[in-house]
Amino acid sequence: MTTGKQEHTPAPLGRQYALLTDLYELTMAASYFEEGMQEEATFSLFIRKSPPDRGFFVAAGLAEAVSYLTSVSFSEEDLAYLKSTRHFNPAFLDYLKNLRFTGDVWALPEGSLFFKDEPLLEVSGPIIEAQLVESFLINAINLQTMIATKAARSTVAAGPRRLVDFSLRRTQGVDAGLKVARASYLAGFAGTSNVLAGKVYGLPIFGTMAHSYVTSFCSEIEAFRAYARTFPHNTVLLIDTYDTIAGAKKAIIVAQEMAARGEKLRGVRLDSGDMAALSIEVRRLLNEAGLDYVTIFASGGFDEFKIARTLEAGGEIDAYGVGTKMGVAADAPYFDIAYKLVKYGNKPVMKLSTGKVTYVDKKQVFRFFDDTGAMREDVIGLREEGIPKARPLLEPVMVQGRPLLPLPSLSAGRKYFLSELARLPMQYKDLKAPPTYPVRLSPGLQHLQEQTERRVREQELG
Amino acid sequence: MTTGKQEHTPAPLGRQYALLTDLYELTMAASYFEEGMQEEATFSLFIRKSPPDRGFFVAAGLAEAVSYLTSVSFSEEDLAYLKSTRHFNPAFLDYLKNLRFTGDVWALPEGSLFFKDEPLLEVSGPIIEAQLVESFLINAINLQTMIATKAARSTVAAGPRRLVDFSLRRTQGVDAGLKVARASYLAGFAGTSNVLAGKVYGLPIFGTMAHSYVTSFCSEIEAFRAYARTFPHNTVLLIDTYDTIAGAKKAIIVAQEMAARGEKLRGVRLDSGDMAALSIEVRRLLNEAGLDYVTIFASGGFDEFKIARTLEAGGEIDAYGVGTKMGVAADAPYFDIAYKLVKYGNKPVMKLSTGKVTYVDKKQVFRFFDDTGAMREDVIGLREEGIPKARPLLEPVMVQGRPLLPLPSLSAGRKYFLSELARLPMQYKDLKAPPTYPVRLSPGLQHLQEQTERRVREQELG
Repeated sequence: MTTGKQEHTPAPLGRQYALLTDLYELTMAASYFEEGMQEEATFSLFIRKSPPDRGFFVAAGLAEAVSYLTSVSFSEEDLAYLKSTRHFNPAFLDYLKNLRFTGDVWALPEGSLFFKDEPLLEVSGPIIEAQLVESFLINAINLQTMIATKAARSTVAAGPRRLVDFSLRRTQGVDAGLKVARASYLAGFAGTSNVLAGKVYGLPIFGTMAHSYVTSFCSEIEAFRAYARTFPHNTVLLIDTYDTIAGAKKAIIVAQEMAARGEKLRGVRLDSGDMAALSIEVRRLLNEAGLDYVTIFASGGFDEFKIARTLEAGGEIDAYGVGTKMGVAADAPYFDIAYKLVKYGNKPVMKLSTGKVTYVDKKQVFRFFDDTGAMREDVIGLREEGIPKARPLLEPVMVQGRPLLPLPSLSAGRKYFLSELARLPMQYKDLKAPPTYPVRLSPGLQHLQEQTERRVREQELG
Repeated sequence: MTTGKQEHTPAPLGRQYALLTDLYELTMAASYFEEGMQEEATFSLFIRKSPPDRGFFVAAGLAEAVSYLTSVSFSEEDLAYLKSTRHFNPAFLDYLKNLRFTGDVWALPEGSLFFKDEPLLEVSGPIIEAQLVESFLINAINLQTMIATKAARSTVAAGPRRLVDFSLRRTQGVDAGLKVARASYLAGFAGTSNVLAGKVYGLPIFGTMAHSYVTSFCSEIEAFRAYARTFPHNTVLLIDTYDTIAGAKKAIIVAQEMAARGEKLRGVRLDSGDMAALSIEVRRLLNEAGLDYVTIFASGGFDEFKIARTLEAGGEIDAYGVGTKMGVAADAPYFDIAYKLVKYGNKPVMKLSTGKVTYVDKKQVFRFFDDTGAMREDVIGLREEGIPKARPLLEPVMVQGRPLLPLPSLSAGRKYFLSELARLPMQYKDLKAPPTYPVRLSPGLQHLQEQTERRVREQELG
């Protein structure tokens, strides 16, 4: 394990990724420009449908969003490319040259728990600016929020046992590889196998050997001995290459050889087979040999469900490598997350498309706690509405294009998440079909919502 | 639509991503180094288990793999970080400073069809080099192969109808956003909404307006008119913001206003509701108004299954925006893809871990076609084995660390994929539970496999 430094300030993403947007953001911008539309627009970012089994969500990705918004601008090369597409006229491209984000952003702090329909981010600014940033903001926040939410479920399932992100090889790309390491750490993991993530985010990194290491030696026990020679103080032996129990017996021989030299084998790793049964047997063998200090690490298809099943079956596993299924959120690999216009000028707006509800206007999420400090109920209200005795959750993070105070560090976010998770009543942490956390609308929002819907229906369908 | 330039040579990924690896690749390397192990190792990259409903796979991501292998090296900053972790001794770090990949690579050409257990890439080189690159290679090839495979299924379902990648906002990160645009184009899509992907890969880009555009105007029809003013030659109107049929009627008014000015409305877009029924009704309304030239574009939750259902229900849709479900391969968001040591020195190797088979030694995939040119059967054999009348599929792409001829362009890969897809018998293209394409082992491989397993069993478990 390596404890790294503080999380770096992310690179100026906006300069790199101004073109990382859907073409329609730019064609709409061109039309707003032609039409002289410059009024303030507010967009809400929220999850409009909960995937199965998610009792809560964990907000993540804010640092990336702020880095992008603070720096978004089109380079000469970007503009030359846009010109080459022949979609845009010179006046608009000229306008883009000086475009910067000058709006305001309210957001849930990193690591906050939240629920369906609650905005985790609201952006207000001239409509072109607030519109253009849609694709990047959804992408950045969807990924980290989805992964933090998925990883948090392993944290719930594993209790005090240590979890390590092992997902890099099968995350959907290299950006996801980094973000999964970050988001899973935020959600309570101890660290990652991903070395670059260790460097970039200052995360503890973990890892020892693969099957290829074992098979490259003339025998398993020689591989174990060689590794122990190279890393006398940090050896975890992978024991399932040929047969887990036979491997455990060889690991015990090597552990005893190490002990004779005054060294301690740190652990063994299981990577296939019936994890509960094998871990019980391996624990017994280790203990019988006086090696109760040797920990059992397990990897191979773990997610919150397999962790829970293994624990129920009495598995004696001290730490888990949690890989692919967490790293791609395999049972819910995307959120139905949207960034919707909720106000333009002084007019609250909504669409009526089948089965998709958007709550209008600038909003706030108000949270009620009971006397023990446990979460009780949320109310989605208007930003300026007074809701007594509730904690308002959204905080201003950017004003007129400039970030307010530096965002909390990743470790601070992790602490905040863990403290908030402790305040969430148990039933919402159920891994399967948890009940729906109570979220209602404030009277002010309810009224404005109905009024707006009536107005829109009358005007467009009446 | 914008036809862009040639695909860029990818940036030297290896310099940027030497640390994008699992820590164990480096600890194993340190141990190989200490032990003086420098013999040639061969690793096979293959899919060891087929996800549900995949009758074939599409090989993709080779350009990225080659770019990485050609340039992988540790910077001073990388080495300083590794030193700070206190895992490694100075001699090893010194060795890493000059490390380059000097091995050979054989691979399936981009866009090839392949099946479970068939290597799509084999790397041979000094064991440290061939081991270190594992995490990046799996990551790069898993993502693009998985997406090209998923997208190819939409290509099969849609037949001649045009498909556009709309997934950027919910791909798992920005790297995935770019790679999904690329891989779906390889698999027959017409282009993408992702502007940066258009620039980087020279893809056609598409897009018009979102609901926010419509709701920002005082009425839907005014929004339609404004857009037509800005883009008189390229307007597709999104008609479901309030009610699809009411929207279609307003689009017809605007189309007629455009026609009176000598302009042509290009299309309307549906984004919610019963797509088949709505498209039939909208087509009828358009045709009655003499607007048979206005195309119907549909988006909203499309993947191969929804495209097939919509077509079966008689949907009259000319083009589809295919988004999230393709962009994250929602029904199979990862492949069980592995990179396994198959030979070290002159010794074929394998692991025996429960339920995971690795075929030993350097291999070749041989493909048989019938008299009509249709694919009939594949044989996995030894690299040097002679299999008469079959086409060997793996080609050398790097020798001694240097790429051979430049790889084919993305458009050439797309053409190759489409021609290969035409040679795959229909039944393997079934979207649900296709039969298993026949793949068998050559006598040479079968024999070596059995011999190796016997040897390993006797030695480790005997």
